[in-house]
Amino acid sequence: MAVLCKPAVAVPEHVITMDDTLELARTTHVDHPQLGLVLRLIRNTGVAKRHLIQPIEDVLKHPGFDARSETYEEEAKARVPAVVLRALDNAGVEPEEIDLIIYVSCTGFMMPSLTAWLINTLGFRSETRQMPIAQLGCAAGGAAINRAHDFCTAYPEANALVVACEFCSLCYQPTDLGVGSLLSNGLFGDGIAAAVVRGRGGTGVRLERNGSYLIPNTEDWISYAVRPTGFHFQLDKRVPGTMEPLAPALKAVAAEHRWDASDLDFYIIHAGGPRILDDLCRFLLVPPEAFRFSRATLTEYGNIASAVVLDALARMFDEASAVDSHKGLLAGFGPGITAEICLGSWTSSPPEAAAA
Amino acid sequence: MAVLCKPAVAVPEHVITMDDTLELARTTHVDHPQLGLVLRLIRNTGVAKRHLIQPIEDVLKHPGFDARSETYEEEAKARVPAVVLRALDNAGVEPEEIDLIIYVSCTGFMMPSLTAWLINTLGFRSETRQMPIAQLGCAAGGAAINRAHDFCTAYPEANALVVACEFCSLCYQPTDLGVGSLLSNGLFGDGIAAAVVRGRGGTGVRLERNGSYLIPNTEDWISYAVRPTGFHFQLDKRVPGTMEPLAPALKAVAAEHRWDASDLDFYIIHAGGPRILDDLCRFLLVPPEAFRFSRATLTEYGNIASAVVLDALARMFDEASAVDSHKGLLAGFGPGITAEICLGSWTSSPPEAAAA
Repeated sequence: MAVLCKPAVAVPEHVITMDDTLELARTTHVDHPQLGLVLRLIRNTGVAKRHLIQPIEDVLKHPGFDARSETYEEEAKARVPAVVLRALDNAGVEPEEIDLIIYVSCTGFMMPSLTAWLINTLGFRSETRQMPIAQLGCAAGGAAINRAHDFCTAYPEANALVVACEFCSLCYQPTDLGVGSLLSNGLFGDGIAAAVVRGRGGTGVRLERNGSYLIPNTEDWISYAVRPTGFHFQLDKRVPGTMEPLAPALKAVAAEHRWDASDLDFYIIHAGGPRILDDLCRFLLVPPEAFRFSRATLTEYGNIASAVVLDALARMFDEASAVDSHKGLLAGFGPGITAEICLGSWTSSPPEAAAA
Repeated sequence: MAVLCKPAVAVPEHVITMDDTLELARTTHVDHPQLGLVLRLIRNTGVAKRHLIQPIEDVLKHPGFDARSETYEEEAKARVPAVVLRALDNAGVEPEEIDLIIYVSCTGFMMPSLTAWLINTLGFRSETRQMPIAQLGCAAGGAAINRAHDFCTAYPEANALVVACEFCSLCYQPTDLGVGSLLSNGLFGDGIAAAVVRGRGGTGVRLERNGSYLIPNTEDWISYAVRPTGFHFQLDKRVPGTMEPLAPALKAVAAEHRWDASDLDFYIIHAGGPRILDDLCRFLLVPPEAFRFSRATLTEYGNIASAVVLDALARMFDEASAVDSHKGLLAGFGPGITAEICLGSWTSSPPEAAAA
């Protein structure tokens, strides 16, 4: 059985607080007809601070898509290796024992993907499979875990490494002045996370079932416009209301597994924004504390896209409250509108016992 | 066992011949210091004609990355559905029986990927998994088949749809004047291919083993520079020589399967260029006719990136020469430098028998 081991997470050193963000919005958009609404929406996110790969002065400049692409590559190469090595260490796995690297990132585009450089640089085997995914946005954290689960189901001796590298600040577009864009400017942060899914052994979440769900005809609710200035994030105002159609999809996957989505021991939910978490609590009939890990990620780092679910999961490991056979649900949400859903049980079996 | 069924393929209606290409190179680059070399390289490709989504006059204009992104989306939506429906028909599978859509395309970028639109438009279930891959370039055709194989190994009742949509003409960059760029302008074509991998039943290639190989420290041999004008394809002159390090990787995967890569019944090889095919023949000690399907794709369509292996495979189905338990090798090559390798046997078992 595939076990999702403790994620490693890193956020960059440049910090912007909620007060900084509000002040910036006020000064930058002083004449914006909906400034009041924007400030209220940003305040409602509950994001206390975010971490950025560059000082905010540099984030606010747009040096061109070519310069941003170069920054993406430089910063990823500078920051990802340490996170990957910690994730391997957390799982007790050496680079040469990894059979698949799933690298998810929607905030920069490289071909070849960073997977090739990681294999060359960190001692992975030349035979390591590469699965780079750029187009699932925030849902890609859940998708990466689910595809790693599938891979370890196909090859029970295999190990997969999941890496989520999101530099949302590199998608800041100073000319985008819609309410959705200004809200996003106050919501998204930068972060890197990685975790190993072990085919045999390991302590963490034993992955048992996964599923996906696309809300019909919502392709344009979260999307990129691809322009000379780069990726322009387009957020429809209906997105915060998507838990109503998605909660039944989560319940359905749980029901297939003969679990009750309202009665699980832990929840790791993509913290897209505060209403996502509030609504899903309500629709799943669980207390707000059930989502405390996701809430903490949102408060401390903002929405770090595909890295959110891995960061929230790391917080659960740190709390050390899970005991063997606790049941849980993990869900990522993103463009499509797509939900990537995963069910698993806590296991602390030592590798020897699990392998026997 | 997963069976790769007959691919469906479509190439667009606008045709450019080798003579047209040579004439264009001559007139456009009349003062180029290496024009003679460029013309010789283009002539050596053996590409008799290529098919383009727009008339060549429009391809040669660069209307901006935003306009090209819109064209990519429009043309993909106009052209992909018919190919997908034929692939489903070839496999005897209904849209609602598909569990995973793997969409590979390195010549346009959409978020969400076309997978969401396909699910909404063609009657796939909302629960269909989406795996969009943009960063494996020409190797993505092989990668898509291999990941579909993995998925059907994990879930033996599942079916996966593979779609490769490549509009290479949308990556034409008039300001790129290096020899590699001018050669590429004469080599790449547009094409769409799709195929179903059935978990149970089906006629085609029974997928038995797959593998991947990255040639160490060659990340910058095939790459994109991501700029305000879009993706700029960068081809190193060492790429045509890569079969020397890759042939042993192909042999190694075959040897793990106790097969001899030099003694198989069929070969479906990415036709990156003529030397790739010539060299691999030589290193694998097989006669040139063994690569006739790939050679035909290159001659008639040019290098259609990730769609090449599916088109070459479709030609094998059309030749109808394979008989049960014929053994074969399929390989895609692309940035990394990555090889995606797959071994399989021909099976014409009726679905009923295979399911029993």
